[in-house]
Amino acid sequence: MKKIENPKPNTWSAILERPTKTIDDIEVTVKEIFKEVQKKGDEAVAKYTSIFDGITLDNYEVSPQEIEEAISLISTELKDAITLAKNNIYKFHSAQKTERITVETTEGVNCWQEKRPIQKIGLYIPGGTAPLFSTVLMLAVPAQIAGCKEIVLCSPPDKKGKINPAILYAAQLCGVTKILKVGGIQAIAGMTFGTESIPKVYKIFGPGNQFVTVAKQLATQFGVAIDMPAGPSELLIVADDTAVPAFVASDLLSQAEHGTDSQVILVSTSKKLISAVEEEIQLQLNELPRKDIAEKAIENSKLIYVENDQIALDLINEYGPEHFIICSEFDDFYCNGILNAGSVFIGNYTPESAGDYASGTNHTLPTNGYAKNYSGVNLDSFLKSMTFQKINEKGIQNIGKAIEIMAEAEGLQAHKNAVTLRLNSLD
Amino acid sequence: MKKIENPKPNTWSAILERPTKTIDDIEVTVKEIFKEVQKKGDEAVAKYTSIFDGITLDNYEVSPQEIEEAISLISTELKDAITLAKNNIYKFHSAQKTERITVETTEGVNCWQEKRPIQKIGLYIPGGTAPLFSTVLMLAVPAQIAGCKEIVLCSPPDKKGKINPAILYAAQLCGVTKILKVGGIQAIAGMTFGTESIPKVYKIFGPGNQFVTVAKQLATQFGVAIDMPAGPSELLIVADDTAVPAFVASDLLSQAEHGTDSQVILVSTSKKLISAVEEEIQLQLNELPRKDIAEKAIENSKLIYVENDQIALDLINEYGPEHFIICSEFDDFYCNGILNAGSVFIGNYTPESAGDYASGTNHTLPTNGYAKNYSGVNLDSFLKSMTFQKINEKGIQNIGKAIEIMAEAEGLQAHKNAVTLRLNSLD
Repeated sequence: MKKIENPKPNTWSAILERPTKTIDDIEVTVKEIFKEVQKKGDEAVAKYTSIFDGITLDNYEVSPQEIEEAISLISTELKDAITLAKNNIYKFHSAQKTERITVETTEGVNCWQEKRPIQKIGLYIPGGTAPLFSTVLMLAVPAQIAGCKEIVLCSPPDKKGKINPAILYAAQLCGVTKILKVGGIQAIAGMTFGTESIPKVYKIFGPGNQFVTVAKQLATQFGVAIDMPAGPSELLIVADDTAVPAFVASDLLSQAEHGTDSQVILVSTSKKLISAVEEEIQLQLNELPRKDIAEKAIENSKLIYVENDQIALDLINEYGPEHFIICSEFDDFYCNGILNAGSVFIGNYTPESAGDYASGTNHTLPTNGYAKNYSGVNLDSFLKSMTFQKINEKGIQNIGKAIEIMAEAEGLQAHKNAVTLRLNSLD
Repeated sequence: MKKIENPKPNTWSAILERPTKTIDDIEVTVKEIFKEVQKKGDEAVAKYTSIFDGITLDNYEVSPQEIEEAISLISTELKDAITLAKNNIYKFHSAQKTERITVETTEGVNCWQEKRPIQKIGLYIPGGTAPLFSTVLMLAVPAQIAGCKEIVLCSPPDKKGKINPAILYAAQLCGVTKILKVGGIQAIAGMTFGTESIPKVYKIFGPGNQFVTVAKQLATQFGVAIDMPAGPSELLIVADDTAVPAFVASDLLSQAEHGTDSQVILVSTSKKLISAVEEEIQLQLNELPRKDIAEKAIENSKLIYVENDQIALDLINEYGPEHFIICSEFDDFYCNGILNAGSVFIGNYTPESAGDYASGTNHTLPTNGYAKNYSGVNLDSFLKSMTFQKINEKGIQNIGKAIEIMAEAEGLQAHKNAVTLRLNSLD
């Protein structure tokens, strides 16, 4: 771990730099597969499923039998845990519903804003060793609350042509309307263009490897929206002597086990705490099954000592962490002052993993500094805002003159004329 | 105008197809200018200002003297009109403010969602013959309500090195913090990377020509967010015999004068209304200063007769118009049933130009079918949602077990451990 003391503000951006990746090579591959899926549909999907997943499937859709089987494979203990998490996610995202907002801006001019669901959405859930069924909850629960009509889930099949039962269990629990055994670039391309088996969707959500990330970016060039740009996961903790070093170390390690490129940063006004956390990390690291991954991420991590909380806050806002844990005597100061963060965890009993699974907040969050300009996934991610206006005779008489003058000043005579005709009809 | 009767649903997408453009050539130019601005800053901005705007400037920032001069050049009539529009936009967007949402999802687990302003935003306002000062109002007013700290406006200088006074007047009225005489690709690149004169921003808003559109797309690859993808403006009207043909024609023409690629569509269950509107269009067209532009757009426009309102609604939802005018006996049916539209205008006295200028709704709206997956600009466009959670001893005891089970099932032992340590400390 790299220890840094009192870094000068002009060095912050260098110290806090995120790992960057070259995507140029990947882009060529992704574009080619997109072109092929657009042209050949399922034939191309079959080809790349065979190449990347090593399996040939007759049918991509998960059958009701397969779902029944999955349900029977999940332990009662895990079912109960998933139900608890689902309920909390449901409660928190339901509370985000907004009513129609109506304003009579001028007498006779009634304007309102309403949110309506995005009709067709696609969820991508990676396969591999860690089956991210928690992400199914985080995406499908708010989609269902929003009222999205079609909720399509794509996830790669394993060598036996199966999707992990926990993923299927979560999907059927949360109202996913179609589950497809398709992964990687071909899944994103399929949901972008539609194929015989894969429905075209309007917005794609979910995590993935570099190929999936680049494919989602490319999808936006074909009219599909995506949840947000992706990058490696990251955690920043601000802690002082009120923090428990073992807890802080365990949180840093929980982030570090995600991948060797995970970003882990501790900022503190206490050198004592920094040393204690460092020791704890070494102790706990040895016990972890994913030690190799965590160790590499920890090597690149930073322990930053700063002189006071204001400097700490400024530095944190410059970084804009995806996850931000506050274990400080001055937690209100940080809560009020934090401008750029995805999700904030406050106090010694609020580990990041609570938000990853079960507190109720969403774990699909902006990485890579995107907390400066993007929201994490929330109910609104599945809705779009529309505006309405209804103007009566009195209303157009009240604002008509202003429209005529402004349209004229912008050189748009037909815009003016649309008002003039109406005003004249009322004379 | 192309008249179409009772088109079959499988022909809708062909009939409603939007004009597409090749952007490959432009992309090369845009990428080159981005690279140069990133590397050379103001030097590159100066070079391209000289090439594209035909002028060399010592200083890009508009001075307080220039603003004073602009204020003195605006007529009282136009000032009053702008004030009326600004007040309505302010009222409607202020009403969109949301409070902190707090939920105790489980006893001891407190979660909340809060919106905080995007700190630095950039507004792009095109130059040219029609000075779009109304767009300044539409972007700067909600940015100010949201509390964005830096609001930078870029607009190209004319041959004399000036920006249109109405744009400057609107900018100073709505809290823009810096106005720069920089246009086109170099402005977007400047706001993406930052130069000596142009501040780096987190999100860029505003319309522009094809070069600006492609530049905004490219900006997203460098971590900058944008308001939405852009396309030619479009209007769809549904009208029956309760509509006034002259009003309908005037609305279609107001859209048509925007550009030769504007999309103008009338859908009706009345052949009589369609014929009457067609006649009115010919009458009104001859009177327009921008007749040449409007005529070309009208040539490509479509008058579609359908047998009933349900078919009309389905067709309209498939299209997803930017602007949607309803002049129908069954306006409630359309209001409730419309799923994909940017802004909706209801009744004979609600011309589209009301929303373009002064009703209070925003005129920055999704085109090109993006109404299916994007919101128009609204207060939330200038904010990002952040979540917070604070869990106490009781709370972690209530949800800790579920987190442990789920983390274990996902193969993430360190995630589990962060909870186990805390639970053990409470035993």
